[in-house]
Amino acid sequence: MWIYEKKLQYPVKVSKCNPMLAKFLIEQYGGADGELAAALRYLNQRYTIPDKVAGLLTDIGTEELAHLEMIATMVYKLTKDATPDQMKACGLGAHYADHDKALYYHNAAGAPFTITYVTAKGDPITDLYEDIAAEEKARATYQWLINLSDDPDINDALRFLREREIIHSLRFQEAVEILKEERDKKVYF
Amino acid sequence: MWIYEKKLQYPVKVSKCNPMLAKFLIEQYGGADGELAAALRYLNQRYTIPDKVAGLLTDIGTEELAHLEMIATMVYKLTKDATPDQMKACGLGAHYADHDKALYYHNAAGAPFTITYVTAKGDPITDLYEDIAAEEKARATYQWLINLSDDPDINDALRFLREREIIHSLRFQEAVEILKEERDKKVYF
Amino acid sequence: MWIYEKKLQYPVKVSKCNPMLAKFLIEQYGGADGELAAALRYLNQRYTIPDKVAGLLTDIGTEELAHLEMIATMVYKLTKDATPDQMKACGLGAHYADHDKALYYHNAAGAPFTITYVTAKGDPITDLYEDIAAEEKARATYQWLINLSDDPDINDALRFLREREIIHSLRFQEAVEILKEERDKKVYF
Amino acid sequence: MWIYEKKLQYPVKVSKCNPMLAKFLIEQYGGADGELAAALRYLNQRYTIPDKVAGLLTDIGTEELAHLEMIATMVYKLTKDATPDQMKACGLGAHYADHDKALYYHNAAGAPFTITYVTAKGDPITDLYEDIAAEEKARATYQWLINLSDDPDINDALRFLREREIIHSLRFQEAVEILKEERDKKVYF
Amino acid sequence: MWIYEKKLQYPVKVSKCNPMLAKFLIEQYGGADGELAAALRYLNQRYTIPDKVAGLLTDIGTEELAHLEMIATMVYKLTKDATPDQMKACGLGAHYADHDKALYYHNAAGAPFTITYVTAKGDPITDLYEDIAAEEKARATYQWLINLSDDPDINDALRFLREREIIHSLRFQEAVEILKEERDKKVYF
Amino acid sequence: MWIYEKKLQYPVKVSKCNPMLAKFLIEQYGGADGELAAALRYLNQRYTIPDKVAGLLTDIGTEELAHLEMIATMVYKLTKDATPDQMKACGLGAHYADHDKALYYHNAAGAPFTITYVTAKGDPITDLYEDIAAEEKARATYQWLINLSDDPDINDALRFLREREIIHSLRFQEAVEILKEERDKKVYF
Repeated sequence: MWIYEKKLQYPVKVSKCNPMLAKFLIEQYGGADGELAAALRYLNQRYTIPDKVAGLLTDIGTEELAHLEMIATMVYKLTKDATPDQMKACGLGAHYADHDKALYYHNAAGAPFTITYVTAKGDPITDLYEDIAAEEKARATYQWLINLSDDPDINDALRFLREREIIHSLRFQEAVEILKEERDKKVYF
Repeated sequence: MWIYEKKLQYPVKVSKCNPMLAKFLIEQYGGADGELAAALRYLNQRYTIPDKVAGLLTDIGTEELAHLEMIATMVYKLTKDATPDQMKACGLGAHYADHDKALYYHNAAGAPFTITYVTAKGDPITDLYEDIAAEEKARATYQWLINLSDDPDINDALRFLREREIIHSLRFQEAVEILKEERDKKVYF
Repeated sequence: MWIYEKKLQYPVKVSKCNPMLAKFLIEQYGGADGELAAALRYLNQRYTIPDKVAGLLTDIGTEELAHLEMIATMVYKLTKDATPDQMKACGLGAHYADHDKALYYHNAAGAPFTITYVTAKGDPITDLYEDIAAEEKARATYQWLINLSDDPDINDALRFLREREIIHSLRFQEAVEILKEERDKKVYF
Repeated sequence: MWIYEKKLQYPVKVSKCNPMLAKFLIEQYGGADGELAAALRYLNQRYTIPDKVAGLLTDIGTEELAHLEMIATMVYKLTKDATPDQMKACGLGAHYADHDKALYYHNAAGAPFTITYVTAKGDPITDLYEDIAAEEKARATYQWLINLSDDPDINDALRFLREREIIHSLRFQEAVEILKEERDKKVYF
Repeated sequence: MWIYEKKLQYPVKVSKCNPMLAKFLIEQYGGADGELAAALRYLNQRYTIPDKVAGLLTDIGTEELAHLEMIATMVYKLTKDATPDQMKACGLGAHYADHDKALYYHNAAGAPFTITYVTAKGDPITDLYEDIAAEEKARATYQWLINLSDDPDINDALRFLREREIIHSLRFQEAVEILKEERDKKVYF
Repeated sequence: MWIYEKKLQYPVKVSKCNPMLAKFLIEQYGGADGELAAALRYLNQRYTIPDKVAGLLTDIGTEELAHLEMIATMVYKLTKDATPDQMKACGLGAHYADHDKALYYHNAAGAPFTITYVTAKGDPITDLYEDIAAEEKARATYQWLINLSDDPDINDALRFLREREIIHSLRFQEAVEILKEERDKKVYF
């Protein structure tokens, strides 16, 4: 179970109201390689992964929930003072029509989140390869978002998140090595 | 952000290996009215709900993550000792072909989780009505699962979860009253 | 069965060609809380609801079909005289590429309608809570659309539709009371 | 707008409780070539089709709503007296876990209805080709269902529905001829 | 099996960098009536169609793969020199956030490709009606794209593709006649 | 463009009619880690990958089309002589109701293929990590299918396919090394 601590993992500041940037950032909220997909992927794999690695999945899965909260805070702060007309002008009229200023788990184009972004195969090393790929894809997405953004405060937080994904990727690569060593003693299939 | 505590909210025991029961229980893992939908719904609504109610959404959303973990534990324990042939005989051959014994966020019929089960309208009272309906639907689902199950240990945990949904529903109903009182002073739209 | 009467429930006028407004209004045609979802939800629940309430579901479900037709008429009238270039300029180029001026059941962002917006639990009071929430969400959506629109003729029809949703919500709330009274005599589960 | 008349287009009788047959019949309720898809397809195309054919689309679209109601009645009657254990034994345990005895718009395999089964291109003759194909596919589905069924009462109703699809197909083929004649005078694009 | 030949079926030139046109053309890459849907539809039907027609399905299915490659080349050439800011200005910011300049199988509005655009009924004549309708719909889509485009080089290739769809439609109509003749000797159901 | 050669990459024999095995094998036809997803993933990434690696993607993508055809042949041969009653008894009644004996791109549980199983990020090394993970997941799926099957002829073909995935994974790993060497000279972002 989880205990909520009322603070963000890393402070989120926003230079100014900027709904169009929010439209792009929401990719990491409800998109294919976003934080929701990441958290759900790792927390789900814990049951069939060997004990040696289960703790790592719990730790990173829990951290991705904190990242999800950071992205939510960014998106909210970037849009909360926008008028309907400003939302419309920034390509967020469709979002406003459905959700007003509320957040929603969709990608930047408005396609609703689907769990089919995520897999689970039961084979531990395979699942870790999936996780490494996921972290690399999240890292790339943060790069594309930084390229799209000119808000220095947002970019600071995006760079923090990008760096975390790089570290997660390394830790998953280490976990593969640990399991491969184990595998040389016994055989998985 | 969240801190993980390595215990379940309520103990989960399983009388015996029973993959067919697991097949049904997974409805509350990745189905329309399951715990994943619930957690994501409440945690997402926090940003546009008045402060008076935001804490409630965080609390219940966080508790639903713990319920999700309980369901995962049940499903895993009910299937972990099953052979491929037993999985096949219980209607879980399709799940095995894709996931071996790993869990996956789909409903009992195998339809993958989609966020379109969840809404967010930005209007606080509307969002709370959605939440009350969600709790009632989760409560009904737990009842249908109890009707399908003859495992006394599982039923004990399912009854615990059903009772929690009833309490959540009541708390959301109270929150509606609080916000309606507020609304009588100012107007939302 | 149904008999078609060749008139709209309420007259639909359009001040001028306005494809961007059509883009937003289509939310109530094929979106999560739109008229299609509403009609399908109520007509589907009729079989397992007690007789006392089944007629209400038929009546409101049939009325939602009439609302669907009103929205279709608005969307069509707002776009029928637009050139491809005007469609493009209003963010409807993607719609035009697929459908020319034909309507389609998607939300304002272009996500195709999915029945996963709708639930049916079999438990009568639960299904009515779902229906109340649905009406509140439709009401909120009409408000967001009115906020986005500056066409006085369209706004007149949207206000009519918003008022109907409020009345439906009240009638579903009454139905809950009727069934709760019944329940005090016998028990549903 | 529509007026509801409280009778079925054709009487629906059921020889005996038979949930497995219900599981298959639901294909025509919420499946790719089912009655819901058909009704929505025709009613949606009315706005961009020439007036000469619009009435035909309204008529057939309205009749498909009546067929949808017939299928719903069959499915309900085939399952209403089944116990949870009987549902489970017939492969409907997953449906029961989510919906109890309520209907839901999914196909026989449990995949939820999606509007992507339906298209609308705006070009009248193209849309009519789509409609002819739809009727042929519905006809084939009724044949596969008759092959799966050994309930003489159900088969009687299924044969009625199959014949209606054949007639609809012919009427759409006539409409193509009418529009092609028109086209020889003016050009659509 | 297939052998790749490193050339396009028809040369693809692009007058100038034009990301907005790419946004529309992608409809034929991953949209409902696009080349991917077409190729998958025909190649899948080969197994249950009579031998007389199976070769036609293989030929046309294989050609649609070549068309898919032509569309991919157009989309890539139209966007490869665009900056992130140009992508943003043309309504491709959401695509860039997820994919940078990579292609993806979605429609012009960004809805991801789903196989539910495609059917397979097993009845040969029915499947051919589906195929005729598919070709007509692809033809219409090419017309809408030509209407949206002012790039003469692109339009040349789009006209080539539109003509191919017309030829495919005729060949499928001939195949229906062949099978109907056969059917007059034996009966399919 | 592609040229079709009328032979399978590897011979496909089937010991006896076995619809239940077909039900599981279809996972590799239209499932998350199946051959369709694989072919579409690699062929789509070719445009933004460096020339040094593009040929590899074309080769493997084209080979996956051949694998798709092998799986189709297996599924067809395993079901073609089954009666509707045999289909029903093996859990394929739902498939029969929709498709008769025709194939369809869905997974073993009947969930229709969606392109959201596939990603494309534009960053070459990231896309190759995705490809390595995809091959590992396909390999695992073949193992689960072999575990479910007792048809020696099918198992021979499944083992061939499993070995091909291992080779593809190695080739993608080599490609990563080639691109990393390149990257040490210039920088991708």
